[in-house]
Amino acid sequence: MSSLRAAARLRPVASRWTRKSCLRPYATAPSAEQPFFTNEPSGPIVKTAIPGPESKKAIEELDKVFDTRSLNMLANYQKSFGNYIADPDGNVLLDVYAQIASIPVGYSNPTLAAAAASPQMASAIINRPALGNFPSHDWASIIKTGILKVAPKGLDQVFTAMAGSDANETAYKAAFMWRRQQERGGAHVEFSEEDIASSMLNQSPGAPQLSILSFKSGFHGRLFGSLSTTRSKPIHKIDIPAFDWPQATFPLLKYPLEDHAQENAKAEADSLADVERIITTHHLPPCAVVVEPIQSEGGDNHASPAFFRGLRALTKKHNVLLIVDEVQTGVGATGKFWAHDHWNLDTPPDMVTFSKKAQTAGYYFGNPELRPNKPYRQFNTWMGDPARAILFRAIIEEIERLDLVTNTAKVGEYLYKGIEELGKLYPGQVQNLRGKGQGTFIAFDSPRRDEVVKKAKSVGVNIGGSGERAVRLRPMLIFQKHHVDILLEALEKIFKS
Amino acid sequence: MSSLRAAARLRPVASRWTRKSCLRPYATAPSAEQPFFTNEPSGPIVKTAIPGPESKKAIEELDKVFDTRSLNMLANYQKSFGNYIADPDGNVLLDVYAQIASIPVGYSNPTLAAAAASPQMASAIINRPALGNFPSHDWASIIKTGILKVAPKGLDQVFTAMAGSDANETAYKAAFMWRRQQERGGAHVEFSEEDIASSMLNQSPGAPQLSILSFKSGFHGRLFGSLSTTRSKPIHKIDIPAFDWPQATFPLLKYPLEDHAQENAKAEADSLADVERIITTHHLPPCAVVVEPIQSEGGDNHASPAFFRGLRALTKKHNVLLIVDEVQTGVGATGKFWAHDHWNLDTPPDMVTFSKKAQTAGYYFGNPELRPNKPYRQFNTWMGDPARAILFRAIIEEIERLDLVTNTAKVGEYLYKGIEELGKLYPGQVQNLRGKGQGTFIAFDSPRRDEVVKKAKSVGVNIGGSGERAVRLRPMLIFQKHHVDILLEALEKIFKS
Repeated sequence: MSSLRAAARLRPVASRWTRKSCLRPYATAPSAEQPFFTNEPSGPIVKTAIPGPESKKAIEELDKVFDTRSLNMLANYQKSFGNYIADPDGNVLLDVYAQIASIPVGYSNPTLAAAAASPQMASAIINRPALGNFPSHDWASIIKTGILKVAPKGLDQVFTAMAGSDANETAYKAAFMWRRQQERGGAHVEFSEEDIASSMLNQSPGAPQLSILSFKSGFHGRLFGSLSTTRSKPIHKIDIPAFDWPQATFPLLKYPLEDHAQENAKAEADSLADVERIITTHHLPPCAVVVEPIQSEGGDNHASPAFFRGLRALTKKHNVLLIVDEVQTGVGATGKFWAHDHWNLDTPPDMVTFSKKAQTAGYYFGNPELRPNKPYRQFNTWMGDPARAILFRAIIEEIERLDLVTNTAKVGEYLYKGIEELGKLYPGQVQNLRGKGQGTFIAFDSPRRDEVVKKAKSVGVNIGGSGERAVRLRPMLIFQKHHVDILLEALEKIFKS
Repeated sequence: MSSLRAAARLRPVASRWTRKSCLRPYATAPSAEQPFFTNEPSGPIVKTAIPGPESKKAIEELDKVFDTRSLNMLANYQKSFGNYIADPDGNVLLDVYAQIASIPVGYSNPTLAAAAASPQMASAIINRPALGNFPSHDWASIIKTGILKVAPKGLDQVFTAMAGSDANETAYKAAFMWRRQQERGGAHVEFSEEDIASSMLNQSPGAPQLSILSFKSGFHGRLFGSLSTTRSKPIHKIDIPAFDWPQATFPLLKYPLEDHAQENAKAEADSLADVERIITTHHLPPCAVVVEPIQSEGGDNHASPAFFRGLRALTKKHNVLLIVDEVQTGVGATGKFWAHDHWNLDTPPDMVTFSKKAQTAGYYFGNPELRPNKPYRQFNTWMGDPARAILFRAIIEEIERLDLVTNTAKVGEYLYKGIEELGKLYPGQVQNLRGKGQGTFIAFDSPRRDEVVKKAKSVGVNIGGSGERAVRLRPMLIFQKHHVDILLEALEKIFKS
């Protein structure tokens, strides 16, 4: 592995990759780029097969008490730094999967470490409040200088939650309450006796015959309500009771998008027609449509800004809420802070949900009617976790300090071109490359995807898949051009093999 | 308020309360008891009406960005210590509500503070893993020396989650998968094409027509699946779609239990008959029954060990799983580590869920058949939070160090007798006192409950309600006899007024 390590030492010497002009997307030499963290490893170190002997021993121990069948790699986080994940055998991999797209500013980030060591954090860890009843005196400040500082345009309220699934489910609950309030005639109209009695029996009208509309191949979580809107893979859904909620066709676009403009526009128009048909005819009327800006778990499926503007118009027309699920796309990875910033909407989405890179979760909203008319309707003991909200504030500070959204846009362009070039050199290995102009939120189909993902570890890279055959790149926001070069070189080795 | 403070200074002088022999349940003087924390406030301090001017200002600010209609009290946790919660106006209240029964070993606990300051915690905070894919090398050790060290008898596996609702929902998912696996003929039998296809359409058999049976007045969470089993109050349920799952009558016992043995036995037998009827006839067959050892949110409703043994026998007889929801009762408050330890079951429950005082969440199970037959069926990005698991380990250490379960059993007895005596002195003020022998998990009905709870703050105590008219006591595990004396004195002031 010494050649790999040598190749990876981009500073001070240029790598083999960067020397090959045909494969160097940009004329600017990566060595001109200042690394964000000077103490980051200069490249991957692969000492053993992964898992190595130490990891194997530890996994065997872990399996006795914890299901390890989905284990990808045992990590040593105390030894992980920046873009690099370490394991107990001394292997250090460039991580472009980042805990399923959830590490924002690098492992063991010093800014986050300082936040973690603060007295405010210590108190939040050990004195966890029931936020709805007993918020701390500094809660307003924590959310105003953190979560709300990056609120999507037009949405100035937040409901805090724990993870992506409950962020979506609480947004759905808000949508159902909003719809029924409208049907009753407003916030001032009291619940009827029938509403009250039937709700306790799980029957309509108290438990209404309404639905959330989602898209085929979409992923919105795994609890009972969110799973009823998840449509990506049977393994998530099988054997779990579901609400009889509808799904609309998602436009299956051809890539590169610009080469198939007409067909793609047709697919998007058909999808919108399907949405309208369902909204107007489904036996459980949808009160909201939930959509990911880029279907992630379902295979990195894109749609155009025009499609989303159409969806916004349709939902407005039919008085249905638009919930944008930014659990995976949010917080900078697409080269905008929120992926829906790419759409240029006339009116904002009604709710935007977040988690993953925020390291906390919840949903944003703007319309006061989405605040339920009485307290305790949207409530639970913890309502999120102040410790995680404090961390998100530090993440935002780090993103601003290093201008990481701009970085991701710029590096994403470099990465996209690099993979495009690689695809030309190794025909058939890179299919349906997608994510142009979407920061580092890039994916391509591979005829031997599982093998590519598996082999990547042996050449120093931790990489993930999505859908049936996509290789999905989800590097952190601190991913730089010299990291791109290491990734491209590793992919080339795999494609050659 | 100076008289209150003086009265509260139990060490070194005896309080008015302890001097009144008729109200002193035990002959032993509280002053003989060593306080766990010598730097704990010696009693409540009430400086202003609550909320005071500082709090009011801060609440107004908070309300602009966060729903404050359920706000009970704004707290300053950095100034809170032990059993005492502080606010921005300098008020310090004895807290027997403890963040809705979720603070285990006191505010700003030094043992927890040390855990929060450890390098392991810092790494867990800033390097949050996707536990199912990339667990840390020390995860096995964290759960073995923490969560699993206190696993209920017979249950040696754990699935970690985020809060009570998803702890229950993932347990429900395990139950549905288990049931369908049995129907298929075992773990080795593959899903049928029909299962796969129909699951993607939210239709049976892939999304099966099965249910979870819960009890009237029970509370199991607020997400779509858990809310379908919650039956405590319409405000939680109204306007939210629900599964058509069944509910059984919960025995409505008369208190004190020993004075109504025959009627209570009859009520319990009727409830069990109702359970059996539903299991054998409901159109969506229950694959599991979920039950709280003491219905908490629903008003502190108790049932006898014999009832729960009967429920275990019935579920065994009909091959239905028994899920014990210990979200509120677990971790020591009832004078046993788990409330179901009081039942002397022949065979353990199939699953036990936990959250609140554990400061993390999840469910325990023992049967290997409850581990789904394939990976990724029970999975999500974070699958809990190692930072919170590390904290639970420190909580367990503190409970062991101070022998807090024993303390809670002993103090609970003293508290119960004190309230019993108070009820005799102020007829009608304490009705249906319950929780004898259940540690400090004590409640009583009050003809003016909301007023009692509200007034408590003015006499230095933070106290909560449950159900329609119950005053529920949920002190922390570090609640001692001298705290009981302060609480009793405060209650007496309210009853007198």
